[in-house]
Amino acid sequence: MKIAIAQLNPTIGDLPGNTQQILEAAQQAVAVGARLLLTPELSLCGYPPRDLLLNPSFVTAMGTTLQKLARDLPPNLAVLVGTVEENFKANITGGKSLFNSIALLEDGQVKQVFYKRLLPTYDVFDEQRYFEPGLQANYFTLDNIDIGVTICEDLWNDEEFWGKRSYTINPIADLAILGVDLIVNLSASPYTVGKHNFREVMLRHSAVRFQQPMIYANQVGGNDDLIFDGHSFAMNRQGEIVCRARGFDTDLVIVEFDEEQHDLQLNTVAPAYEFEDEEIWQALVLGVRDYARKCRFSKIVLGLSGGIDSSLVAAIAAAALGKENVLGVLMPSPYSSEHSISDALALGENLGIKTTLLAIKEPMQSFDQTLAELFAGTEFGIAEENLQSRIRGNLLMAIANKFGYLLVSTGNKSEMAVGYCTLYGDMNGGLAVIADVPKTRVYSLCHWLNRHGEIIPQNVLIKAPSAELKPGQVDQDSLPPYEILDDILQRLIHNHQSAAQIVTAGHEPVIVDRVIQMVARAEFKRRQAPPGLKITDRAFGTGWRMPIASNWVGVKNAYQAKTIPTPTLVCGDGKDANLQSK
Amino acid sequence: MKIAIAQLNPTIGDLPGNTQQILEAAQQAVAVGARLLLTPELSLCGYPPRDLLLNPSFVTAMGTTLQKLARDLPPNLAVLVGTVEENFKANITGGKSLFNSIALLEDGQVKQVFYKRLLPTYDVFDEQRYFEPGLQANYFTLDNIDIGVTICEDLWNDEEFWGKRSYTINPIADLAILGVDLIVNLSASPYTVGKHNFREVMLRHSAVRFQQPMIYANQVGGNDDLIFDGHSFAMNRQGEIVCRARGFDTDLVIVEFDEEQHDLQLNTVAPAYEFEDEEIWQALVLGVRDYARKCRFSKIVLGLSGGIDSSLVAAIAAAALGKENVLGVLMPSPYSSEHSISDALALGENLGIKTTLLAIKEPMQSFDQTLAELFAGTEFGIAEENLQSRIRGNLLMAIANKFGYLLVSTGNKSEMAVGYCTLYGDMNGGLAVIADVPKTRVYSLCHWLNRHGEIIPQNVLIKAPSAELKPGQVDQDSLPPYEILDDILQRLIHNHQSAAQIVTAGHEPVIVDRVIQMVARAEFKRRQAPPGLKITDRAFGTGWRMPIASNWVGVKNAYQAKTIPTPTLVCGDGKDANLQSK
Repeated sequence: MKIAIAQLNPTIGDLPGNTQQILEAAQQAVAVGARLLLTPELSLCGYPPRDLLLNPSFVTAMGTTLQKLARDLPPNLAVLVGTVEENFKANITGGKSLFNSIALLEDGQVKQVFYKRLLPTYDVFDEQRYFEPGLQANYFTLDNIDIGVTICEDLWNDEEFWGKRSYTINPIADLAILGVDLIVNLSASPYTVGKHNFREVMLRHSAVRFQQPMIYANQVGGNDDLIFDGHSFAMNRQGEIVCRARGFDTDLVIVEFDEEQHDLQLNTVAPAYEFEDEEIWQALVLGVRDYARKCRFSKIVLGLSGGIDSSLVAAIAAAALGKENVLGVLMPSPYSSEHSISDALALGENLGIKTTLLAIKEPMQSFDQTLAELFAGTEFGIAEENLQSRIRGNLLMAIANKFGYLLVSTGNKSEMAVGYCTLYGDMNGGLAVIADVPKTRVYSLCHWLNRHGEIIPQNVLIKAPSAELKPGQVDQDSLPPYEILDDILQRLIHNHQSAAQIVTAGHEPVIVDRVIQMVARAEFKRRQAPPGLKITDRAFGTGWRMPIASNWVGVKNAYQAKTIPTPTLVCGDGKDANLQSK
Repeated sequence: MKIAIAQLNPTIGDLPGNTQQILEAAQQAVAVGARLLLTPELSLCGYPPRDLLLNPSFVTAMGTTLQKLARDLPPNLAVLVGTVEENFKANITGGKSLFNSIALLEDGQVKQVFYKRLLPTYDVFDEQRYFEPGLQANYFTLDNIDIGVTICEDLWNDEEFWGKRSYTINPIADLAILGVDLIVNLSASPYTVGKHNFREVMLRHSAVRFQQPMIYANQVGGNDDLIFDGHSFAMNRQGEIVCRARGFDTDLVIVEFDEEQHDLQLNTVAPAYEFEDEEIWQALVLGVRDYARKCRFSKIVLGLSGGIDSSLVAAIAAAALGKENVLGVLMPSPYSSEHSISDALALGENLGIKTTLLAIKEPMQSFDQTLAELFAGTEFGIAEENLQSRIRGNLLMAIANKFGYLLVSTGNKSEMAVGYCTLYGDMNGGLAVIADVPKTRVYSLCHWLNRHGEIIPQNVLIKAPSAELKPGQVDQDSLPPYEILDDILQRLIHNHQSAAQIVTAGHEPVIVDRVIQMVARAEFKRRQAPPGLKITDRAFGTGWRMPIASNWVGVKNAYQAKTIPTPTLVCGDGKDANLQSK
């Protein structure tokens, strides 16, 4: 039996468009003789639909659409479609009103519906907000083959593999006990660095442990902050990859279940990405392209400072929408270095994008004059530094508004973590392209990008990072060296380490304390940041839910806290990330 | 037995400060002869601690703090303290790693720990993200009185009262079956309009149904977007209020359990609020005061346009921090009317706050000149309108940065819903004071405020609302009348009605469609808005989780969607909320 995996890229809530994608995949599947077509989790509405699910007319429309899709599908093809189903017993027995479901469509009908059993409610996932878990093992029989059905998280609780349980049950084990011939998993699993490889390793454990051939069908495409990488695959009962779809693109691949051998046969195996930088690059390009496309933008504008962050983002934007659709704006101030202009122009030439130059001296003077009386007797400081950044932010938004460009912001994760960025200034934009990319990774991506020749100008790579908001300013006036900062941030944010643990790992206590406090007090800025493309397992954004008005900075002993300075939140505190006390 | 309710106002994560509050309440309780002290849910860390709970050192510190608190408490007083407890079996049986807990402290020890059974995971609540539900009915015996312990949501599943079940079990029924003498509920229940009354009505049902006296202890205070209203109370087995604590302030009240009558005795009953406007006013004042205090701001700055929104917010700010700590900034443009100045000055005088005037003509001209070449041949439009708002936003942030003020934004819920506001302009601020207050309610609050004499100038109340971003502009050029808009929004956002249902209720189809599309396409603006004080059951903010890059606008039939124009997201699209197609 030939089984087709449709690795689809749905737009959230676009029921007609997503249905059309499924119909087209079904035609292709029939053309190559497939008997069964797999589509990703919630393929009808796209994942994650979030609070659209609270809208009864949305749920009703999904039901209507599913029925019509069943009638419109070609004959002799069974199709698994991701949808939601109402929990009609919810009001009587208690529980959420929906099931995250897979519908088996065949012969013009909805033949069976399967419910997701394990509902992720961590990081960016909120499934227990909407869904009731299914209680039964899910399978169906097609041409005498018993096919077990699992949905995304249902795979992720093999206690042998993890060394612990996250949920009481393991749906794979349940299906193995039932003795199905094959297990399929329909997923919408967001990208993080190396995750596609991890999925294969994890699934191999289950395939071998339970002697089950497995097919993994994943969603692809960017939906706001989340990038789905695709990388659907199939594995035989020995845990060998027999088929792999492309990463970061739609695909339709075929895998054959051999009824004699009771196993999957070897087929096309797309190569896996060898280098993390290449993989991250592909993810970010897809994230930008899909955010723009799904929001109906064809052009991008961004500020070019001559620094490495905006250089990388310009390269990503050009790869995503085409160099002819990217406008880089140079906005020098009297504090800007000459190389800030020459480096940005060199980058623009290397990329072939359009550039334009708008000096900000005049607006700066007009603000200075307007505020002169009020600010009389005060010294140049954060207010004046931030104003420069905000004037640039205004110019970029004016261009975006005037010509219908998407403005993208260019801050990296290290900056976002410690608040070394200006709210309503360089943070402006519809999408924060590298907000989950630490500064050290920004360098590594740029070096990878230059592997065949210069794209990011050499001088951008070697000069000291600077916000250039006052004469002679460099980032390291305010921040520890980025290698040290990024290691502390990795331990703090990803590994949930305490100050004591980070110090034990070899960092200076005074620096660790300072970084921890900067991270805490930058929460108000992050709350107002645009969606940032997620590439790690702990990104700022929908999966980062921190209080702002709090007073916890990771002290070692609660009763000692009073002796440790508490962070002062300064709304709009800018590039200067020094702790201030008022 | 005398029982004290400590209606506390904790700061999130401030373990030493919150512990000190509990110790002080304990001293007061002992002074009036109480044997038992009740504190709110998670009183040790404040509610909601959110992702601080993912930090192991935070959880460890809570344990250490709890042990020390037990030792420091006065003798002969039993105290119920809200804390978290680790689920040590999580890795073996599956499940979340924490329990939302109440610890019984007595004789210098943690005597018993109770786990919350019903975990709200809807709206602003994410408890299944962190907690495993408790499986047992919770009670303890003190001086031969059996006291049932419930935590917040444990109360909210009486299937008789609701006419449906939200959870399988009803912890109150379980305790009634066990035959306890008294049930206490320790809560952190956020304010919405009329909710304190609703809680009393709901609890009365359970008290009478199960013939149980009940004590309800609630948190008070503002934590970011959430305002906790306090209004703790106690009820005898006939469902009569025997004690009520103040609303919107800390309090310590005593209630006596009569061991002969097996019931609670009548005690102090603070009056309930009679008028919704008064109640909302108190809530917003508390929300502003606590956000400022907990973020360590003593002064507020805001823009005064002479319009009703900024007038109301200025009045709230003055009530929250004192008139001497509020600075109103008038920023007229060449398009500003004369009354925009005179009305703002009259308001400033009525309130006794400081005002200053900064004309924005010069910065406008400098931006126009800077952009002249790039914008040559284009007409005055949204880009230019937004620039005015953003210049004002920059000036306000410069003042906030220079002098350490908290900038508050003044947009109302109707504007936030349809996107009639400028991102990085009038949306700027650390807190959006009236972002959950519809425009019609803004008027009603101002009329209530003027009940004893003019505070909001009369002309502000009667003139047509206008953004004054171009000559002669009024809101109703772009929006339906606010009475109509607010009714459509109430149906759409709160009641989850479809376009068809809203039309059936009597609204024009073309207006309904337009409003629905405006709401959908303003999602990118709301995502970058400051936290807004929540006063309704469906506020934009932490409990509003919508996709941005989506294509669902509430059409009646999914297959008809293609014929309906889809919303175009224009990043930074401003006060002009007309639908644009590019």
